[in-house]
Amino acid sequence: MNKVGIIMGSKSDLPVMQDAVDILKEFNIDVEVDIVSAHRTPEKLFDYGKHAHTRGIGVIIAGAGGAAHLPGMVASLSPLPVIGVPVKSSNSIDGWDSVLSILQMPGGVPVATVALNGAKNAGILAAQILGSADETILNKIVDYKESLKQKVYESAKNL
Amino acid sequence: MNKVGIIMGSKSDLPVMQDAVDILKEFNIDVEVDIVSAHRTPEKLFDYGKHAHTRGIGVIIAGAGGAAHLPGMVASLSPLPVIGVPVKSSNSIDGWDSVLSILQMPGGVPVATVALNGAKNAGILAAQILGSADETILNKIVDYKESLKQKVYESAKNL
Amino acid sequence: MNKVGIIMGSKSDLPVMQDAVDILKEFNIDVEVDIVSAHRTPEKLFDYGKHAHTRGIGVIIAGAGGAAHLPGMVASLSPLPVIGVPVKSSNSIDGWDSVLSILQMPGGVPVATVALNGAKNAGILAAQILGSADETILNKIVDYKESLKQKVYESAKNL
Amino acid sequence: MNKVGIIMGSKSDLPVMQDAVDILKEFNIDVEVDIVSAHRTPEKLFDYGKHAHTRGIGVIIAGAGGAAHLPGMVASLSPLPVIGVPVKSSNSIDGWDSVLSILQMPGGVPVATVALNGAKNAGILAAQILGSADETILNKIVDYKESLKQKVYESAKNL
Amino acid sequence: MNKVGIIMGSKSDLPVMQDAVDILKEFNIDVEVDIVSAHRTPEKLFDYGKHAHTRGIGVIIAGAGGAAHLPGMVASLSPLPVIGVPVKSSNSIDGWDSVLSILQMPGGVPVATVALNGAKNAGILAAQILGSADETILNKIVDYKESLKQKVYESAKNL
Amino acid sequence: MNKVGIIMGSKSDLPVMQDAVDILKEFNIDVEVDIVSAHRTPEKLFDYGKHAHTRGIGVIIAGAGGAAHLPGMVASLSPLPVIGVPVKSSNSIDGWDSVLSILQMPGGVPVATVALNGAKNAGILAAQILGSADETILNKIVDYKESLKQKVYESAKNL
Amino acid sequence: MNKVGIIMGSKSDLPVMQDAVDILKEFNIDVEVDIVSAHRTPEKLFDYGKHAHTRGIGVIIAGAGGAAHLPGMVASLSPLPVIGVPVKSSNSIDGWDSVLSILQMPGGVPVATVALNGAKNAGILAAQILGSADETILNKIVDYKESLKQKVYESAKNL
Amino acid sequence: MNKVGIIMGSKSDLPVMQDAVDILKEFNIDVEVDIVSAHRTPEKLFDYGKHAHTRGIGVIIAGAGGAAHLPGMVASLSPLPVIGVPVKSSNSIDGWDSVLSILQMPGGVPVATVALNGAKNAGILAAQILGSADETILNKIVDYKESLKQKVYESAKNL
Repeated sequence: MNKVGIIMGSKSDLPVMQDAVDILKEFNIDVEVDIVSAHRTPEKLFDYGKHAHTRGIGVIIAGAGGAAHLPGMVASLSPLPVIGVPVKSSNSIDGWDSVLSILQMPGGVPVATVALNGAKNAGILAAQILGSADETILNKIVDYKESLKQKVYESAKNL
Repeated sequence: MNKVGIIMGSKSDLPVMQDAVDILKEFNIDVEVDIVSAHRTPEKLFDYGKHAHTRGIGVIIAGAGGAAHLPGMVASLSPLPVIGVPVKSSNSIDGWDSVLSILQMPGGVPVATVALNGAKNAGILAAQILGSADETILNKIVDYKESLKQKVYESAKNL
Repeated sequence: MNKVGIIMGSKSDLPVMQDAVDILKEFNIDVEVDIVSAHRTPEKLFDYGKHAHTRGIGVIIAGAGGAAHLPGMVASLSPLPVIGVPVKSSNSIDGWDSVLSILQMPGGVPVATVALNGAKNAGILAAQILGSADETILNKIVDYKESLKQKVYESAKNL
Repeated sequence: MNKVGIIMGSKSDLPVMQDAVDILKEFNIDVEVDIVSAHRTPEKLFDYGKHAHTRGIGVIIAGAGGAAHLPGMVASLSPLPVIGVPVKSSNSIDGWDSVLSILQMPGGVPVATVALNGAKNAGILAAQILGSADETILNKIVDYKESLKQKVYESAKNL
Repeated sequence: MNKVGIIMGSKSDLPVMQDAVDILKEFNIDVEVDIVSAHRTPEKLFDYGKHAHTRGIGVIIAGAGGAAHLPGMVASLSPLPVIGVPVKSSNSIDGWDSVLSILQMPGGVPVATVALNGAKNAGILAAQILGSADETILNKIVDYKESLKQKVYESAKNL
Repeated sequence: MNKVGIIMGSKSDLPVMQDAVDILKEFNIDVEVDIVSAHRTPEKLFDYGKHAHTRGIGVIIAGAGGAAHLPGMVASLSPLPVIGVPVKSSNSIDGWDSVLSILQMPGGVPVATVALNGAKNAGILAAQILGSADETILNKIVDYKESLKQKVYESAKNL
Repeated sequence: MNKVGIIMGSKSDLPVMQDAVDILKEFNIDVEVDIVSAHRTPEKLFDYGKHAHTRGIGVIIAGAGGAAHLPGMVASLSPLPVIGVPVKSSNSIDGWDSVLSILQMPGGVPVATVALNGAKNAGILAAQILGSADETILNKIVDYKESLKQKVYESAKNL
Repeated sequence: MNKVGIIMGSKSDLPVMQDAVDILKEFNIDVEVDIVSAHRTPEKLFDYGKHAHTRGIGVIIAGAGGAAHLPGMVASLSPLPVIGVPVKSSNSIDGWDSVLSILQMPGGVPVATVALNGAKNAGILAAQILGSADETILNKIVDYKESLKQKVYESAKNL
């Protein structure tokens, strides 16, 4: 089974991005975590984007803040589906910069964007993508959704 | 191979959503197009979301405008990856309503959001998702990206 | 007399939504509080929306944050007036997501939207709706407005 | 049965507000239409707000654009439920001014806000409010919702 | 010499509005402070607006937050120049609601709007308005501007 | 009686700013119109700001678009009350740039900001400022407000 | 003397970017125009960014729309000053996406951003940068500013 | 070699602007720091803008918050390249006011705008501008970029 490549523009994004790692581990899906900065390590970005699909990665999750170019540039370089996580960084203008610079990709080069700081959902989406062709994972998603449901029923009981 | 289910909240979304149909046909991927309104046909929504994955659909593309609940509600009901297309409808507040009501899903239920009116990218993303486990499609994506590149080189020549 | 059904997408919305409960109790109007998540318990949502009007509920108040689909989906399913409370949740983009995904409903399916975190006003509005056909409640509203006025006069005295 | 009072700040709002009149006529609900400007006819506003509930009006619909004070001021003066329609006027900043100055009412004085230019939904909501205590109207709402559903099924057939 | 009438929608606006009181006292201009709520004391608003110019008030400063109708409604009722101070209240959407519902007045009824929480500038502007026909005040403004300048020169020295 | 100085950053602002000229002429108040560009004619700006109050001008109206510095810079240089008109210029970002760069002046240097393209209201406000100390003008304002009222009553008759 | 490299993400940006070409020609500064797409021709982007400073280019102007990554990525690759022009493309959300994804660069990698569609100013800024160390160009800038001034004086005469 | 002139509207901007000083010192480039307020010391602004280029300054960095006119006004007065730093001041509307009043300059008078609070990048950009004609500085920029890269590689090792 393919693994999920998780990259982020800076180590300061890790507290947000860890949610993606955790949920994928919960689904027993292999992850590979790295720091790749579009603006400070463009060669590493190039190398990563060009070869990810040749070494067992099936989906890429890329998180970045501010003028967030990492998800879009990896999507430019790789044929794999790329999930973008807009991170609300310290000098962000309320997160709008991260959201818009990841979401508004031009025709031809999509980035699957999730909510601001939505790394957990990025992980679930990556699992769903792998699950689209893998019934074991699909069933885990079904179970996961059932567990979400049960938690709501529990919390409603205790009102 | 799985097909792609394309749904939209209203027939008026078709001019935008047709781009997803067209690009998927270019990739020789089967599509199934339907109108499902979260607000006017909730039973159809329920039925669609609950059973799509049992009848050969591998990815769902859902487009809607304004307070756009269709993508998120289908994502609530289906274990499949759901791609959301924010459509800029007539009384939209500049598209912000469509974008935010699709993108900002709570933890647990992701929607892979693309750009405003970005149905073409939704189609490409759907192909990439299927291609994540299918080398033939992956290679088509590689070729497609190559063709985009060539078009830019052409246009640069004619400056 | 009909009662007011108050639902919210998550227990974390309760601190905000409690204001609606409190003000309705002040008006001696019966309330029924529940947690119904559009995205995690779609079946419960369906059941709630379909039957609320058959079991003595006259108005529904629904609060949710982020991509807030609960108010609109209940409005899709129920013939009752639905009041939507945009809740400013933790990863919200300043509340805009909640506001727009509740307010901007398409033609045919209204949601009576109140201010961000405006659960108190949702309660008063519910009382006004019941009071539209019930003089006792209408008079309570008149008295309530009088009490607001007196409080301002008091605070002006103590400047 | 109570009737619906529809007011607007300027005759130029009529093309938008007519949708409320039309849908209420479809439901056989009496409407009374008037122009009341908060900023140019404050005395008329006062008189209208103070006495609407004493002369057979059960719900008020108020539409205005820009710094839209009409809905909130009528809500200040009347114990009736007030529905606010933000109208996108000519010098509006994309409709944000109308939306925010109607929606963001302080605690104690709610306005039931509908979408930008959403006069049709204001009419439906007014019917739902009257229908909350009137089974004939409630049934008309049920039928109306059924008709919306059928139209979607029709349009889906002709794809 | 005319005095300045300072009103605010709620006692909670006083910490912001006090800046207007203080600067006007610095200019030896008489002020009269009161709480007038457009939404909770509409009769007081009416009375205030109708008679302010008949009892020695030359300029009105009105501060309010959220859907801030006080400045515009006073401007509707009074022939005097009205200065509006958008106050950033607790449930405000980042202050945009206050700003837009004060600034975007329709043609015919201006409100002289100052910056968010800009009560100090409201006081200076009121002094300038009175100073437009009173050389003593005009000279105080000239001196005040000179003092601002000196403070900058001082702070530059101590870099 | 003092006159009103009307300046604008570019001749292209004249179609908007003419409304201020027209309404002031209606009130029989003298106006002086000029083009002063903060960015292209800083010396003229300096000269204008420094001397306007010495040559019979009692109020300044300044209109500009985009990064609109003219109103604030004239307010920096002159002790007179300055009214700012945000003009929606061709490459403006929906008018937000003009509005915010005029409205959000720092403490000490107010600009009396009116609505986007609200030159008519700037003219009325200038008249109110002169009228604050001149009963003839004050009475004209009273009459003008009465005429606005009558026009609304007329339009209501013809519904 | 160094020349100015002007690149854009798509030929559709040329009508906007031509203004930069024209004004630089007016200053007799050599320009080199090319199409370089960050998302479709990443290799060309890499090559361009890595070598521009080695072949006589002193300043780079990069224009792009939507999720505009070209200016920031060139700034990542080149030691030269990079001027970014946010282009308002067809599916842009009012230009906010282009502006924020160019402006909000992280610490370490600046892009000198100009106004939306502000290619003319990008050209002037490039000239100023070259002129910072070249008195002939500096004097042309002085003359250019003088000509702007004269045009305003002319237009003021013809009011 | 030319030095860099760093000015700011108020001493309260110094904590943000210090980043520009520090990075330029790191590059061994001379800086001259001053406080120049467009609104409180217009004469100093004039003097500064008119003469900076005559006394050894090659680039100007200007930081200001709110309705930030300092960068644009200096650009109006000086032929030098001016870098603008939008500072997020205390009563700012989320920084939008500073950003837009610096960025959206009219054709003819550019300001090279960097990110909100992006003084560090302003310093680097100033160095790049001087480096455009000075190989020593250019090489320092190359080295600096290399050091950024190494830090990312380090942080990736320690994941």
